[in-house]
Amino acid sequence: MKSFLDYKESDLNLFTDFYELAMCASYYDNNKNEPATFDLFIRNMPKNRSYFLFAGLEQVLLFLKNIKFTDKQLIYLKKHNFHTDFLNYLKNFEFTGDVWAVPEGSIVFQNEPLIRITAPIIEAQLIETFLLNTINLQTMLATKASRVVNEAKGKPVIEFGLRREHGLDAGMKVARCSYIGGCKGTSNVLAGKCYDIPVFGTMAHSFIMSYRDELDAFRAFTKTFPNKTTLLIDTYDNIAGVNNAVVIGKELENSGYNLGGVRIDSGNLTEISQQIRKILDDNGLNYVKIFASGDLDEYRINNLLNNSAKIDVFGVGTKLGTSSDRPYLDVIYKLCEIRDEKGGFSAIMKLSEGKSTLPGRKQIYRYKNKKGYFDHDLIGLDNECLLGDPLLEKVIDEGKLIYNLPSLESIRNRAKENLRCLPAKYKALESSPEYPVKLSQNLLDMIRRLTRKLKNE
Amino acid sequence: MKSFLDYKESDLNLFTDFYELAMCASYYDNNKNEPATFDLFIRNMPKNRSYFLFAGLEQVLLFLKNIKFTDKQLIYLKKHNFHTDFLNYLKNFEFTGDVWAVPEGSIVFQNEPLIRITAPIIEAQLIETFLLNTINLQTMLATKASRVVNEAKGKPVIEFGLRREHGLDAGMKVARCSYIGGCKGTSNVLAGKCYDIPVFGTMAHSFIMSYRDELDAFRAFTKTFPNKTTLLIDTYDNIAGVNNAVVIGKELENSGYNLGGVRIDSGNLTEISQQIRKILDDNGLNYVKIFASGDLDEYRINNLLNNSAKIDVFGVGTKLGTSSDRPYLDVIYKLCEIRDEKGGFSAIMKLSEGKSTLPGRKQIYRYKNKKGYFDHDLIGLDNECLLGDPLLEKVIDEGKLIYNLPSLESIRNRAKENLRCLPAKYKALESSPEYPVKLSQNLLDMIRRLTRKLKNE
Repeated sequence: MKSFLDYKESDLNLFTDFYELAMCASYYDNNKNEPATFDLFIRNMPKNRSYFLFAGLEQVLLFLKNIKFTDKQLIYLKKHNFHTDFLNYLKNFEFTGDVWAVPEGSIVFQNEPLIRITAPIIEAQLIETFLLNTINLQTMLATKASRVVNEAKGKPVIEFGLRREHGLDAGMKVARCSYIGGCKGTSNVLAGKCYDIPVFGTMAHSFIMSYRDELDAFRAFTKTFPNKTTLLIDTYDNIAGVNNAVVIGKELENSGYNLGGVRIDSGNLTEISQQIRKILDDNGLNYVKIFASGDLDEYRINNLLNNSAKIDVFGVGTKLGTSSDRPYLDVIYKLCEIRDEKGGFSAIMKLSEGKSTLPGRKQIYRYKNKKGYFDHDLIGLDNECLLGDPLLEKVIDEGKLIYNLPSLESIRNRAKENLRCLPAKYKALESSPEYPVKLSQNLLDMIRRLTRKLKNE
Repeated sequence: MKSFLDYKESDLNLFTDFYELAMCASYYDNNKNEPATFDLFIRNMPKNRSYFLFAGLEQVLLFLKNIKFTDKQLIYLKKHNFHTDFLNYLKNFEFTGDVWAVPEGSIVFQNEPLIRITAPIIEAQLIETFLLNTINLQTMLATKASRVVNEAKGKPVIEFGLRREHGLDAGMKVARCSYIGGCKGTSNVLAGKCYDIPVFGTMAHSFIMSYRDELDAFRAFTKTFPNKTTLLIDTYDNIAGVNNAVVIGKELENSGYNLGGVRIDSGNLTEISQQIRKILDDNGLNYVKIFASGDLDEYRINNLLNNSAKIDVFGVGTKLGTSSDRPYLDVIYKLCEIRDEKGGFSAIMKLSEGKSTLPGRKQIYRYKNKKGYFDHDLIGLDNECLLGDPLLEKVIDEGKLIYNLPSLESIRNRAKENLRCLPAKYKALESSPEYPVKLSQNLLDMIRRLTRKLKNE
C-alpha cells in the first residue's frame, strides 16, 4: 500500500530548491569550493511585529549532521543532467563547516545574523532551502505564540489549531513553538508524545449532538472522565448549558469529584463569560474554570481582558497555528565573505534598494540597562572587542556538533527570561517603538569602503 | 543521533486533537458505537475566493487504509488515564466504514459535502483531525494556485516558495497542489522525485556575487549548463545584466547552444521587462525568454499583463505557497445523521447563528447550461432522484478502498476541465458573483421539520 506520507527522513536532503543543486554543480565543475560565510537573518520587521522569538535551531543542526545522499536520489538527479563527477561528490557529501548560532528562545531583531555558516561554498549553498524553511516557520510561530501568551497576562493559553495548520510537519512545529512561546500545552496528541509537553482537550459539538439531550451527553462524558472534566456548554444555548453543567457539578461533588471547567466557543465571549461566572458562583461552583475559544488571537484576548471578560483559560487555534496576520517572515540567507586568492577573506555585500546586506563575519552584542532590561543591540565584526553580551555561539566545529542541544523546557525558560527582559513598550500590540539595533564603527567603515568600491566599478 | 523529522508514518494516527480520543473513549465506555454520518465541508466562501479546487483526497484515503495503533502509542495513551478496555479496542482499530467523496481536481463551493463518511461513530470521530488538516491545506493551495495560473493567461507559472512554506509537509503539498492547479512545475527537488513533476531552477544572487564579476559568473554557469540556461540578471543592474546576457547568448550560439532565458527578480517588472525585451530583440535574441519573480501573486500578475509587461514565465513563491491572503479555509466536519433505536437513521442538524448545518445524508448535483458551462449546483438528499450530475462517488466500501486512485496528471486534467467549464465571471479577481448552490425541496422540508422540532424542545 502506497504511503500517505510522501517522504522519509532520509529523503529530506532533496528537500531543496533545484537551483541550489544547479549552483553547486557549477561550482564543482569550475573547481570552486573555497570557504565562504553566509548569514541567515530576517530582513524586515513586519509592521505588526516588534521582535522575533528565535526557534528552529535544533532541527537545523540535526539536518546538518544527517544530510547524506542515497543511490536512488543520485539516480534521480542523473535524469536532470548533472555530471557524474558532481554526483560522485554528492555520494560522499557531508557537512564539514563551522556554525555559529543564537540559542533557541532568544529575542532577536531584523538584520541580526541568527545563524552564521562558514564552509566550503558548495556545502554552505546546498543547505540553504532547508535552513530558511525551518527558521522561517518556527521563528514565525514562536513569535506569534509569545504575543498571544503575553496578552493573556498570566492566564494559561492552550494551542489547538491542528486542523487548520499547514500539514503534518507544521502541526508538529506549531505545538513545539507554541510551547517555547509560553503556551501551557497543545491539543496535538502526537506532539505531546514526541516533545513530552502537556496535552489538553474537551469534547466537540458532535458529541453533545449524538445524545438525546445535553445532560445525557455531559453524564456520559463524566462517567468516563469524572475528575476535572471541562464541559462544552454552547451547543444549544450557553445559559441552558451552564445550568446543565451546574447539575453535573453537583452530581460530581456528591460522588467525591470536581467539575474542572466549562468551555464557551461562540457568541459575545465577554458577556457570556460574565453571565456564566455568576451562575457558577451563585451555585457554589466558584472553583469551576471558564475556558474560552473561537477565533481568538492576541488582539481579541487583549480586548476580552480589557472588557473584564471572566475567562480563566484561552484556547487559541487557527490564527496562532497559521500566524494568519503574518504567515511568513522575510528570512534570507546571504553570502557575506569568501576566501580570496591570497588566502584571506574578502567581505561581500549586496547593494540594491531596500535589499542591501551587511558584509563580513559578524557578531551580535546585546546591552542591558542598569535594571537588567534589554537596552539596545550592536552588530559588530566578529574580531572586534566589544562590551555587550555576544549572542552567537559556536555550535558546530568543522562538522562536529559541539553544542549540547537544550531541552525544550530550557528553551522555553530562555524565552520566558528573554521576554521578561524586553521592556514592555516593545511588546505592545500597537505603536511599539523600534528596538535600537546599531552597527559598530568598524562595520560601518567596512560598509563605506565596499559601497565606494562597488559604485566605482 | 536524534532525528530532525519528529515523526514517522506509523506515528500519524496520533496526529489528532486530544478531544477526539477523549470522545471516543467515552463513546466506548458508554457502549455507544452506532453508525453515524459526518460531512466534511467548507462553511463559508472567503470574500477573496469565489470557488474552491478540491484536493487532498488521496492522502485521506491512504490514511484511512493505514491507521493502526502501536503498543508504544497505547502505552503513551495509558498515561492520560484512558481505560484499558478502550486501549484494547484501539489495539484492534481499523476503519470499516463507507466513504463518498468528490474527486480531486473538482470545483466545489461552500456547504457542499466534499467527503461523506458513514461508520460506527467511534471510527468516524477518531479520524476527524487528520481529514480536516489535509483537506484544508490542499484545497486552499490548489485553489490559490489555480487563481495564479488563471491570471497568467496561458504563460507558464512555476511554484518556488519552498523556503517560506510551512514546514516539510506543506512544502511537498504545495508542489503537489500547485501542479493540480495548473502550475508547470516546482523548484522542490524532492517533490519532483516523489510526484514525478517537472522541476525548475536558475541561480541565486550569491552565485553571481561569489565571482569577480557577473560575466565570469554567467560563463561559469553556462560552462556547466550550456543549453537553455536561464541567467539571473538583476544582481547589480538589470540593463548591465542583460547586456552581459547578450554576450553570453552570442558565445553560446557560436558553440551551437541557445540561451534559454533571463530572470528578473526586483524593481518595476513592467518597465524592466520591456527594456530588456528590446535589448534582447535588437541583438537577435528574440528566442530568449523573460522569467519574472519577486513577490508575485494573482493580483500582481494581472496588473503586469494588463500593463503589457513582456514576461514569458512567472515564478511564484511565498504568496502562493502560504496562500498568504487567505492562509486557512473554514473546513469543518459535522455529524448529520445517527442510527436511532428503531434501526433507522435520524437526521441531525446544528442550529446556531451563522453556524447551522445541513442535516441528512446528502449528494451534490451539478447542472450545466447548453454550452456545457457550470450553471448551478443543487444539494439534495442521497435517496432523491435528481437530474444533475452527482459529484460524490463511493470510494471506500465497508473499509475497502474501491476507488482507483487517479494519477496526479489525471487530477490535473480534471482541474483544467473543471476550470474551463466554470464561467469566467466566477474566476474574476474582483466583483465575482456568488455561484448558485441551491437546496432541494426534500432537503428544505427536512430542515424545516428539524428546525421546528429543535425550537420546540
